[in-house]
Amino acid sequence: MTPAFERLQQHLKRLPGLGFRSSERIALHLLVEKPARLPELVRALEEAAGAVHRCSRCGNLAEAEFCAVCGDERRENGVLCVVEHVPDLVAIERSGAFRGRYHVLHGKLSPMQGVRPEDLNLQSLLNRISAGEVQELILALPNDVEGEATCHYITEHLPKGPAVRTTRIGFGLPSGGGVLYADAVTLRSALEGRKGYH
Amino acid sequence: MTPAFERLQQHLKRLPGLGFRSSERIALHLLVEKPARLPELVRALEEAAGAVHRCSRCGNLAEAEFCAVCGDERRENGVLCVVEHVPDLVAIERSGAFRGRYHVLHGKLSPMQGVRPEDLNLQSLLNRISAGEVQELILALPNDVEGEATCHYITEHLPKGPAVRTTRIGFGLPSGGGVLYADAVTLRSALEGRKGYH
Repeated sequence: MTPAFERLQQHLKRLPGLGFRSSERIALHLLVEKPARLPELVRALEEAAGAVHRCSRCGNLAEAEFCAVCGDERRENGVLCVVEHVPDLVAIERSGAFRGRYHVLHGKLSPMQGVRPEDLNLQSLLNRISAGEVQELILALPNDVEGEATCHYITEHLPKGPAVRTTRIGFGLPSGGGVLYADAVTLRSALEGRKGYH
Repeated sequence: MTPAFERLQQHLKRLPGLGFRSSERIALHLLVEKPARLPELVRALEEAAGAVHRCSRCGNLAEAEFCAVCGDERRENGVLCVVEHVPDLVAIERSGAFRGRYHVLHGKLSPMQGVRPEDLNLQSLLNRISAGEVQELILALPNDVEGEATCHYITEHLPKGPAVRTTRIGFGLPSGGGVLYADAVTLRSALEGRKGYH
């Protein structure tokens, strides 16, 4: 292959889910099979990069000042779901199981990797709570050390004022998954999170 | 998600091997997680589109007038391997099993889909044979109706002059594949292509 081809392949290979072969296949597709799609893709990339930014309220993707969720009058106010990343929000939206508002931290606290509170979208979360926007806070953060530390930080820094009911999203066996195939951490969470059977 | 995000996702979804989820993941990666990579990717795409074109001799990817294979003095002259697409050439190169020259047709004849001889890189193949460049022609075209028709067209249109030994690449069971899992066409080819056992 040629040098410019290999540089393009290297850039594609860094994208999530793409390996050596899949990036080669896409580069060949754009350079040989369907060259008309290359400038279209470039235009879509540049357009999205210019148009899409973080919602000034919750940190979700937005093209206006507020994102689609923050701008939606029919969503339930007062219930705020805190997620690590935008894809987490997308997954919860796709489930249809939540009709409240969100707050995206864009990461989780990690002293090991040098991620401090000021590196995350945390202050604006505390500001929203201070403003009395929130009655229930659902911490939908991952079931790991950093997720735990982030939950701890948030609950320790809740602003003074009316009490906010704070919950953590449930952990346990995934739907369709049996005990046999679950890892030790999941089983421990599932046992700790057991409920009365009626 | 936002309109520009969804347009980008649609463009990514058209690339080979990417579906709804993987294109969403890549769009989120480029717009949220690693936004610095987006302009780098755009630059690599534009650079490759500007630099890479078809080799004027064989149809392979090239940045100079001739591709790396045509420009390589150490390759065996006189043996020409005819392939449908550039990825086929890449696969054969990766195997290390061939040290001759190539000719890329960029398709195969298909009356059903309206692919005629003049739509393919066929005339320049016949010109190379006329010029006396070729002693053996290996037809590494697919084992299907269109591949068969293309092989037939080439052998029918071989220029008058010194005889060219023409072979078709072997078909049969893939390495590691047993009879149990092979489809009917492969088994038929494998039986027809049987060889004496020594």
